[in-house]
Amino acid sequence: MPNAEQPLAPGGTIGILGGGQLGRMLALAAARIGLKSHIYAPDGDCPAAQVTDTMTCAAYEDAAALRRFAATVDVVTYEFENVPTAAATVLADTVPVYPDAHALAVAQDRLTEKTFMRDLGIATAPFAEVGSLDDLHRAIASIGCPCILKTRRFGYDGKGQVRIDTPAQTAEAWAGVASAPSIVEGVVAFDSEISVIVARGLDGTVLAYDPARNAHDNHILSTSTVPSGYPDALENEARALADQIVTALGYVGVMGVELFVCGGGGQLMVNEIAPRVHNSGHWTLEACVTSQFEQHMRAVAGWPLGTVARHSNARMTNLIGADVNRWHSLAATPGAAVHLYGKGTPRPGRKMGHVTQLAPRKET
Amino acid sequence: MPNAEQPLAPGGTIGILGGGQLGRMLALAAARIGLKSHIYAPDGDCPAAQVTDTMTCAAYEDAAALRRFAATVDVVTYEFENVPTAAATVLADTVPVYPDAHALAVAQDRLTEKTFMRDLGIATAPFAEVGSLDDLHRAIASIGCPCILKTRRFGYDGKGQVRIDTPAQTAEAWAGVASAPSIVEGVVAFDSEISVIVARGLDGTVLAYDPARNAHDNHILSTSTVPSGYPDALENEARALADQIVTALGYVGVMGVELFVCGGGGQLMVNEIAPRVHNSGHWTLEACVTSQFEQHMRAVAGWPLGTVARHSNARMTNLIGADVNRWHSLAATPGAAVHLYGKGTPRPGRKMGHVTQLAPRKET
Repeated sequence: MPNAEQPLAPGGTIGILGGGQLGRMLALAAARIGLKSHIYAPDGDCPAAQVTDTMTCAAYEDAAALRRFAATVDVVTYEFENVPTAAATVLADTVPVYPDAHALAVAQDRLTEKTFMRDLGIATAPFAEVGSLDDLHRAIASIGCPCILKTRRFGYDGKGQVRIDTPAQTAEAWAGVASAPSIVEGVVAFDSEISVIVARGLDGTVLAYDPARNAHDNHILSTSTVPSGYPDALENEARALADQIVTALGYVGVMGVELFVCGGGGQLMVNEIAPRVHNSGHWTLEACVTSQFEQHMRAVAGWPLGTVARHSNARMTNLIGADVNRWHSLAATPGAAVHLYGKGTPRPGRKMGHVTQLAPRKET
Repeated sequence: MPNAEQPLAPGGTIGILGGGQLGRMLALAAARIGLKSHIYAPDGDCPAAQVTDTMTCAAYEDAAALRRFAATVDVVTYEFENVPTAAATVLADTVPVYPDAHALAVAQDRLTEKTFMRDLGIATAPFAEVGSLDDLHRAIASIGCPCILKTRRFGYDGKGQVRIDTPAQTAEAWAGVASAPSIVEGVVAFDSEISVIVARGLDGTVLAYDPARNAHDNHILSTSTVPSGYPDALENEARALADQIVTALGYVGVMGVELFVCGGGGQLMVNEIAPRVHNSGHWTLEACVTSQFEQHMRAVAGWPLGTVARHSNARMTNLIGADVNRWHSLAATPGAAVHLYGKGTPRPGRKMGHVTQLAPRKET
């Protein structure tokens, strides 16, 4: 059981729940520093399973399989925040799970997450709990239109969200989330979204990478660019907010913190947190000595955190669906690092890979 | 079958002969660009097998296993130059093998290699063929002492070599190489050793990374440093020699070319070539967008070669034997990229990992 005094030695095994591209890049990063990965996923032919010799193919609800898995690994982590709480509980009986159940609980539920931020004094969009159509009417009256109805749980890439532009859409919106426990959030007139990839080690050390400026297309991240172009003061405030969040949670691992820049660049609001490595941090693979993936593995293994300094400027572009068919011309582009995830069919909206373009860092 | 017109598409499989750290880093690099690796090695618990889900554990002499392996992969490459010629021949019946049998033949035999260089007009240490004790006496009389008796085949890291300081040691030296077919090389009074990692694509494109300056300890590479500290003219000449060699061979893949800098920095001699990725190119993992490992996989898959530009200065230090026990303090060193190979016991002389220290590139 790794801790800061007794880190997991090389040759140890980290269990990873989830077999997608984030699990794949975590496993690749673990291999670099001599740690083994054991992938646990319901799909045996998943991107992560291709890059390790140890895989358990089982459902997240299969307690017996989870216990067998736990017995073969030294620590467990995950690549997605919708890990069933029951699975985390079963695993935590016998092996450390990082980030822990508390972090999962906060990040899995938009209401808990927003309340947690408010309790820390961190600005967010205005929000209200919605458990019924009556609640929704009241929330809209209070917050005003436009606003967004979001299910409390299991949302990502714009899924489980309905925009409400006028009160007349209330009932339709409530049907649109299938009457699931939800929140209403006010629409924030933000200038841009930035994100901070922050890591907290088992010894409490916190290090944050440079904030990236993100652009979305159809609710899916399209590009992340560093430097963000914002002044140092704003970037430092963003890093400080991320530090405050992981410290308050007693978090272990890498977290993605999405922030809105509002008011002409003068104010930051936290949009959401992801208790895992994050798509907007993929640029760290090329532009930093320690990537977010290695950083996460270092943290959960009780290792010292690595350097977050950025030696180059970078722009990461996701390859969504048919974008991946451009792999050959991307591979021929000078200075472009192409990453492909080993997925089969390029369905619309599916993240197939990404490409990071480096440029020399201009000192200011 | 990949070629420059029809490169191996993402999802294709590259077979790798050999399961050591070079195979491991090749497989990790292939995964990054969406290519699968199938490791073929006699040891099932080898570093490379840990990072892929497909492995054949069989002897290099097992023709049936080789044929089964060849049927499951799109192209074959290797991580070590002592691949038995018979194995390469069996494989080449059904699948492309890069680098090809000719490159292997030249690199496997010191006499063939030196003769190849001489025929190209490339300077090497003086050498003579030795097939008997009489030959050895004659060679020593001609080349003079000190000189080095080296077996023609299967030498690496100083193995299969005996230094001869006086003619009185002749018989002892001949016994020292077990009367194997050998060559004698004159000892070159070189200032330093540099190496060029060069790649040639299936379309004939040649790209060479910046030369590294190498230091050895007990015949094993200790450090590789870029920049080399030599003037551009000398570095360009080194690159040109590497280009000349891979072009003359019609080579496909990455090659390591070791050169002696002699005469106060005025002259280059080729020491030896390795038809594979090379220990002195590990710094490319952090200091370049495309590492030597990805470059090799790109080349054998018929992809365009990647950028060889170096964005940072770098110094790679091998972790030999018990050096690896310093992993924790190395992991805590700012700017140090630690690579560990997943090997078990740190025996003396065993390459357990390496660490690359980056520094900002100072423009001159």
